[in-house]
Amino acid sequence: MENRIRALKKTFAKEEISCFLVANEINMLYFTDFIGGAMLLAPKADENILFVHGVNYEAAKAEAKNCNVRVLKRKEDLLPKVAEEIKSLKPKQVGFDSLEASLYLKMKNALKDIKLEPKDKMIWELRRIKDETELNKMRKAAWLTDEGVRLAVETIKSGVREYEAAAEIEYAMRRLGSEGVAFDTIVASGVRSAFPHGGCTDQKIRKGDLVVLDVGAKYRNYRSDLTRTFVVGDSSPKQRRIYETVKEAQETAFQSIHEGVRARDADRSARKIIEKDGYDEYFVHSLGHGVGLETHEQPTLGPESKDVLKAQNVVTVEPGIYIVDFGGVRIEDTVLVKKESAERLTKATYDFEIQ
Amino acid sequence: MENRIRALKKTFAKEEISCFLVANEINMLYFTDFIGGAMLLAPKADENILFVHGVNYEAAKAEAKNCNVRVLKRKEDLLPKVAEEIKSLKPKQVGFDSLEASLYLKMKNALKDIKLEPKDKMIWELRRIKDETELNKMRKAAWLTDEGVRLAVETIKSGVREYEAAAEIEYAMRRLGSEGVAFDTIVASGVRSAFPHGGCTDQKIRKGDLVVLDVGAKYRNYRSDLTRTFVVGDSSPKQRRIYETVKEAQETAFQSIHEGVRARDADRSARKIIEKDGYDEYFVHSLGHGVGLETHEQPTLGPESKDVLKAQNVVTVEPGIYIVDFGGVRIEDTVLVKKESAERLTKATYDFEIQ
Repeated sequence: MENRIRALKKTFAKEEISCFLVANEINMLYFTDFIGGAMLLAPKADENILFVHGVNYEAAKAEAKNCNVRVLKRKEDLLPKVAEEIKSLKPKQVGFDSLEASLYLKMKNALKDIKLEPKDKMIWELRRIKDETELNKMRKAAWLTDEGVRLAVETIKSGVREYEAAAEIEYAMRRLGSEGVAFDTIVASGVRSAFPHGGCTDQKIRKGDLVVLDVGAKYRNYRSDLTRTFVVGDSSPKQRRIYETVKEAQETAFQSIHEGVRARDADRSARKIIEKDGYDEYFVHSLGHGVGLETHEQPTLGPESKDVLKAQNVVTVEPGIYIVDFGGVRIEDTVLVKKESAERLTKATYDFEIQ
Repeated sequence: MENRIRALKKTFAKEEISCFLVANEINMLYFTDFIGGAMLLAPKADENILFVHGVNYEAAKAEAKNCNVRVLKRKEDLLPKVAEEIKSLKPKQVGFDSLEASLYLKMKNALKDIKLEPKDKMIWELRRIKDETELNKMRKAAWLTDEGVRLAVETIKSGVREYEAAAEIEYAMRRLGSEGVAFDTIVASGVRSAFPHGGCTDQKIRKGDLVVLDVGAKYRNYRSDLTRTFVVGDSSPKQRRIYETVKEAQETAFQSIHEGVRARDADRSARKIIEKDGYDEYFVHSLGHGVGLETHEQPTLGPESKDVLKAQNVVTVEPGIYIVDFGGVRIEDTVLVKKESAERLTKATYDFEIQ
């Protein structure tokens, strides 16, 4: 963890900055292992300062790593206080990760001659490579998600409402130690399965329905992301055909992944299978995205992506086919990129027909 | 719902804009009843346009209200496409709600002579006044949260781990129709209860522990926010004294609330009780905040707030006392502001000692 902020500072010279202002709460968590900071200042040569509001002061003192904690007193505003600190360091240029436009304008104004430049890429270069500590947490999150699917297979049947199934799945993961969910669980059945982000409603699942289940556990702030598609009872030939196409596309893309592969080529390998079977117009999203402290991170696995995969990236592989008024199929795993291959962190069943 | 965007446009002249760019996803939901838009353009005289990526196009066509849906084709970037549309309308000045600094800089650059001004206040003026449809959903969310507390009282006992209690509470709410949680549930026991945002861990709750439970259900995207503090078994005189002080502060602040009251005065009324009992340095946060589509909204009920409460605001009232190495007590309700009084939407028990 201490390495992370040191690694960031090593890139300062190349980017011509001498100080980094971390305003994104997930980035603050990444560097300090603490959620609840207001802003983190990382100057090249000096100690890092985590500014916190009174409400989180005692927790920050007890838990935040690699920084001095400075509390904002009542009537003290965050922005002028941080600007003051930056000015005392006399940098020429300061990098920052993310700021709301109005806050950015105020900060820029307060800093006068000091340049303020968006440099979030510097942090993404670090965050997209997961270290062993991170991977252990992600393996646990993936296992918890698999356990959720195990419960889903037992729970999803004709007559069960979508949100009831979600309740059982989330409960199973939570009891085993999941810290809530990585995102709102999707249980989209029948024609609603054709909406990739279909959420879940009080609709009852019926025999013969396609059911898209998209779910993720959280463990020590790290996330997992998995989709399975089921049919309740016997599938129709068309449902089966679509399922087989998506399954082949997912496996082909998974097999294509290792260090050095262009993300767009991984996307392409799945899209080619879907094209061959004539469903290309129904694969309406990218192949996948990075996962970690956030559900959607870098790199991006899409047709226009400029990313090149590296060992220790963790990404989703999730082709899908969505036909309006018929239904949809998506299969997704969270996958670890390695030197010469890839490894599925999620390992839940691909059973299609469930009772 | 149609009224909302009309109400926004009525304020255009005063703010000297002729077009509003809505980029915040919750604001898009507020105006269109759809989650998953990329940007919403609301010109004074023309039709509203919701730009969506392909992945959400079919869902948007089926569900988004008060707008024409326009899909981004593959290789089309959102920003130039929206900028093009804005330029065709020839406005002098465009308001926007929220944009990441780097996106703001790009948009500003693309719009050339057209001024781009942060005007999120215009939307908050609307969102902070809840209409009847919204209040019905918030009542349901509050009821679901109360049911979670009912389960908590049965579940929290010596030997139960914090996250296990959270699992049972969330499951109870979910089975009754809660759409996940409004925020990560806090079950903070023992000395950890002194951290206002203590989360929950695998620590076992012990006899005599203070346990802060902060929980919220979600219903049709509207949220609720409630805190109760329990002691397992018999409380000590000091625990009881602190509890009685917080209880009195919460009741006093609640009684002070109605249309026209300054938010800072509501905060003051609670703080005075806590001061009287000598605990003022331990009340380390504001009295409360607005609740609605987000857990933390406007208005702000704090010592420096400039807000004045209005009928149909929904706010939390949540004083607390936190003593490091001892523990903390917070009591919070979600409260509806009315013309001459206030109404608690959350109505769970205030029982302190549970078995």
